[in-house]
Amino acid sequence: MEHHLCPGFRFSGITAGIKKNNTKDLGLIFSETVADTAGVFTKNRVQAACVTLNKQRLTAGKSRAVVVNSGNANCCTGPEGMQDAVRSAEIIAGRLNIPGEQILVASTGVIGQRLPVSKIETAAPLLVEALSATGLYDFSQAILTTDLAPKIHSLQVDMDGVPVTITGVAKGSGMIKPDMATMLCFICTDAAGAPEVLQRLLVSGVERSFNRITVDGDTSTNDMVLLMAGGLSGVRLQDQSQIEVFQKALDEVLTTLAKKVVKDGEGATKLVEIAVTGAETDQAARIIAETVAHSNLVKTAFFGEDANWGRIIAAVGRAGLPIDPDKISIFFDEVRLVEKGRWCGAAAEAAATRVLKKPEFMIHIGLAQGHGRAWIWTCDFSIDYVKINANYRS
Amino acid sequence: MEHHLCPGFRFSGITAGIKKNNTKDLGLIFSETVADTAGVFTKNRVQAACVTLNKQRLTAGKSRAVVVNSGNANCCTGPEGMQDAVRSAEIIAGRLNIPGEQILVASTGVIGQRLPVSKIETAAPLLVEALSATGLYDFSQAILTTDLAPKIHSLQVDMDGVPVTITGVAKGSGMIKPDMATMLCFICTDAAGAPEVLQRLLVSGVERSFNRITVDGDTSTNDMVLLMAGGLSGVRLQDQSQIEVFQKALDEVLTTLAKKVVKDGEGATKLVEIAVTGAETDQAARIIAETVAHSNLVKTAFFGEDANWGRIIAAVGRAGLPIDPDKISIFFDEVRLVEKGRWCGAAAEAAATRVLKKPEFMIHIGLAQGHGRAWIWTCDFSIDYVKINANYRS
Repeated sequence: MEHHLCPGFRFSGITAGIKKNNTKDLGLIFSETVADTAGVFTKNRVQAACVTLNKQRLTAGKSRAVVVNSGNANCCTGPEGMQDAVRSAEIIAGRLNIPGEQILVASTGVIGQRLPVSKIETAAPLLVEALSATGLYDFSQAILTTDLAPKIHSLQVDMDGVPVTITGVAKGSGMIKPDMATMLCFICTDAAGAPEVLQRLLVSGVERSFNRITVDGDTSTNDMVLLMAGGLSGVRLQDQSQIEVFQKALDEVLTTLAKKVVKDGEGATKLVEIAVTGAETDQAARIIAETVAHSNLVKTAFFGEDANWGRIIAAVGRAGLPIDPDKISIFFDEVRLVEKGRWCGAAAEAAATRVLKKPEFMIHIGLAQGHGRAWIWTCDFSIDYVKINANYRS
Repeated sequence: MEHHLCPGFRFSGITAGIKKNNTKDLGLIFSETVADTAGVFTKNRVQAACVTLNKQRLTAGKSRAVVVNSGNANCCTGPEGMQDAVRSAEIIAGRLNIPGEQILVASTGVIGQRLPVSKIETAAPLLVEALSATGLYDFSQAILTTDLAPKIHSLQVDMDGVPVTITGVAKGSGMIKPDMATMLCFICTDAAGAPEVLQRLLVSGVERSFNRITVDGDTSTNDMVLLMAGGLSGVRLQDQSQIEVFQKALDEVLTTLAKKVVKDGEGATKLVEIAVTGAETDQAARIIAETVAHSNLVKTAFFGEDANWGRIIAAVGRAGLPIDPDKISIFFDEVRLVEKGRWCGAAAEAAATRVLKKPEFMIHIGLAQGHGRAWIWTCDFSIDYVKINANYRS
């Protein structure tokens, strides 16, 4: 694992016994300074205790640490669940010798079971002791559930001669359909910035990354993205040109992590970009792209490497928007398989089938109606998806 | 196969070579009289030639026959596709010695390929010759695609001392998600009625049956339900009490067929009714029921016989409606697993898991907010679904 260390941040990840399979399940991010902090949270009406607690604590836009457990979502656990979340934060705060309110919490796993706080209490000394500037890989493993691989992306950007680091880590394996699992993402940077500046940066970046792999509002109970800005680089994000440079770098980290989440989707074997152009509006393009990206029929055809454009055009047709079937073009990467709503023939289909054998490709749907465009990243839908989700809790 | 013959109607189903696997793929319904006819069609913006043609022909509310092929949807085939549909009708009309405009057409199968009209022409003599009052079973087989079983339901209802027969036949295997496949349904009766009366009866019945196994507008390119009323019983549907008796009987036929379609859903092993009560409005209840009924996570848990109520409550939460998680109850048949948003314990879960082992059961979600209620029939989501749809065209 090669990635840039983020000055001012330390990480750890250990096995606390919360998961059944004796793998890492408790992680900690610690900032040496009080970090300016922004957060984006699930829009699901059912929200886990960690989401509710963090929203309260982020009204001041500051934090020192995030404690994350996998194996238990601490959701639908009532007032006791909130007490468990607060208590977990207090346990770690005591060990770190900082106020409990400076700790944020995140949980991912099964809904409806009490968080085993005693296990967190037992594990706390080791968790804090293990903190290290190079502990990010351990942390990235501790937050996984059905993910096959940890997801880290880190970069440095030059800001007026000063190197600024942005380091991101994410988990989330269930983006084949957006309600499948919790998505968590933590971004650390040694820049600093007013909470409202950071919040705008984060909302904007998430819109172009994680919100491109999920439907607005169609989120799990625990989803969150946190941005912690510790400030050790001395760079404070204030003037517009600086903010733009940082936004671009942040977008790259978020987009890379978002695509890693799709690639590691439960049972996924292919990463597919669904691009829609020529719609009446960007919003219309987005709705059509999402309808195609969520069609089980389209996604099983990707898995079967079947250039079944009829399923794509049928999904376009049921998106609820006025479209003209006789104007639709469909490309598989550069191969045009449908022109003006009609099949381009066996040679084009053979070429499109070759595209489908690639691990990454684009389906481009041209509507020839206007200038609206949008894209969504999705994956194929495999037998393993069903196997994973039929047996998740057992 | 035991079912009531419908006086005045004859049926046939033969092998014309349209499907690859040498099974029955061409069917015909013939009415001895000019039948009063109503139709309900897909709301998909991409519509097959048969849908467009039938809508035109039904403006007068009359028909004599319906010719149905499986193996080819005749959709996205442009003006040639419409010519093929008209020509097929003409071929059969010539054999029946009736005007072509009295023939309706229906197609189901792969999108985007020209209908092999010459095969229909070759098969036409045998198709017409095979017509028989007892040919319904042959017909029911000829309209199948990935269905495992034909779907017929027939009943007689006493209307002021006169027995009136309603005979229905349907195909559709892809209702695990509503965009999966074409659903076709044909209802014959020896009652008669003005086309506008029949249309109201059919729309009302479909709303309580086939529209309960699909999302409004989320339909395939070829879906249709036709009601042909030949009138040989002498009963004409005019006064309100008669219409109500007929509506009830029609609903029973439509509902029975709709549930057969779900039970025979691609890869399905269980028929599940999702009932939502206590919503603010019926419409809100419907949206929540549909969100749960379409969740891949919920449906894979049904397949895995896992009483994973967390996925159900998360789906309720992302339906986009204001709900209070702390008021939600969830029953698996009569077993209460969740009360006021909280798990009812291991004994309840063991009982709920036993319910999941049944081939048919109900998930009842109580919201305790108002008096709105709705139900949806769905099925589980299995490994075979992916296998069937990854390999459908190959």
